[in-house]
Amino acid sequence: MDCYEKMRELGIKLPPPPGKGGIYSSVRKFGDRFYYTSGVGCKKDGKPLFTGQAGKDFTVEQGQEAARVCVLNLLSNIEAELHDLNRIKRFIKILGFVSSADDFGQQPKVIDGASRMLIDIFGEEAGCAARSAIGVNNLPGNQAVEIELLFETEAE
Amino acid sequence: MDCYEKMRELGIKLPPPPGKGGIYSSVRKFGDRFYYTSGVGCKKDGKPLFTGQAGKDFTVEQGQEAARVCVLNLLSNIEAELHDLNRIKRFIKILGFVSSADDFGQQPKVIDGASRMLIDIFGEEAGCAARSAIGVNNLPGNQAVEIELLFETEAE
Amino acid sequence: MDCYEKMRELGIKLPPPPGKGGIYSSVRKFGDRFYYTSGVGCKKDGKPLFTGQAGKDFTVEQGQEAARVCVLNLLSNIEAELHDLNRIKRFIKILGFVSSADDFGQQPKVIDGASRMLIDIFGEEAGCAARSAIGVNNLPGNQAVEIELLFETEAE
Repeated sequence: MDCYEKMRELGIKLPPPPGKGGIYSSVRKFGDRFYYTSGVGCKKDGKPLFTGQAGKDFTVEQGQEAARVCVLNLLSNIEAELHDLNRIKRFIKILGFVSSADDFGQQPKVIDGASRMLIDIFGEEAGCAARSAIGVNNLPGNQAVEIELLFETEAE
Repeated sequence: MDCYEKMRELGIKLPPPPGKGGIYSSVRKFGDRFYYTSGVGCKKDGKPLFTGQAGKDFTVEQGQEAARVCVLNLLSNIEAELHDLNRIKRFIKILGFVSSADDFGQQPKVIDGASRMLIDIFGEEAGCAARSAIGVNNLPGNQAVEIELLFETEAE
Repeated sequence: MDCYEKMRELGIKLPPPPGKGGIYSSVRKFGDRFYYTSGVGCKKDGKPLFTGQAGKDFTVEQGQEAARVCVLNLLSNIEAELHDLNRIKRFIKILGFVSSADDFGQQPKVIDGASRMLIDIFGEEAGCAARSAIGVNNLPGNQAVEIELLFETEAE
């Protein structure tokens, strides 16, 4: 399966890489075929899609939209590193943080927005990673969601 | 050491796998012999053992009990994937989140409940992983504790 | 580059290992050449450099100072395990947690204190890891910052 063809079918267009907000590598090689991404927020056209806390300042559905924007930003960073997203073989791990009110409790539903998109683009076996979805009181730039990925490519 | 014999000695009985609250793999292979689990909460018989924030809604001791329930749920998920828990060679990393009041500060004591149980079942060398114990204001389903594991098996 | 020489140039002196606040391995081998550290806080001479929440109880600059203390404690733990910090080849991943007020939003600036120090000591290519910088409402011992590292050594 060509992931670019799949993205065209789904009407998904990658944004330019989101730019860095600190001193780090956006994508870092780990062993002979694994890569860790840095955590990425939900900025679209340079500003956060949503800010504040889920259950107070944005809804579950808005959080899912923010999670999808995180995935687009992550894929854009990965493409800048690998040059070809078809080199991705398998996503291993998703760590998703949702800025949340104290009684929100629906972080998995929010991060499902990201998980669903990875599966839609890369297929069930490649896309369905292990995952933790965690609530926190505040994220960089007061953004709604931040996600990091661990993935595998074919060995070079 | 047979971990099932050890569990019998300790009076530990694994529950059925806790069921998934989102789109993810409960256990994901990572390279030739490592596995990442998804984060798992402290549900027992389908509902959280404790909810809310440590230091406000539950005590350190109750949090430790919740952490032990997380381990049982994790081992149940791992057994469903590996079929035999004796295939586990070594736990590498524990990432534990404790839903906490702003001034709680005793997350390590809470997660010690999980660490102690892994060492009791698998022995000091296999069970004593690296660990971070982090406080957050809210977790999925308002659960008290969520834990994810990275572990190693014998190469197949 | 000899990292000890570099530390002398920079006037950096490693403290003794900070001691453990729970049941875990401070540094854990992962595969043939990777290591995970446990999360470490900003204790200096046995007490936290800063406590409470960023934006309320300590400033960005104080948070950066705390992040640098975390790195010193981490390097001290790593030295106790590897005996020689020159065995470190590359930092793969930094996971940094900053105890934060609900509207703080500057976690990346805080964790930059840690990232900058690793690059200063080990050089750009070895030091510039992937990273997530996350806000939380509370950390062990009410400390300001907690950081964990994933790094690579030469294979033995």
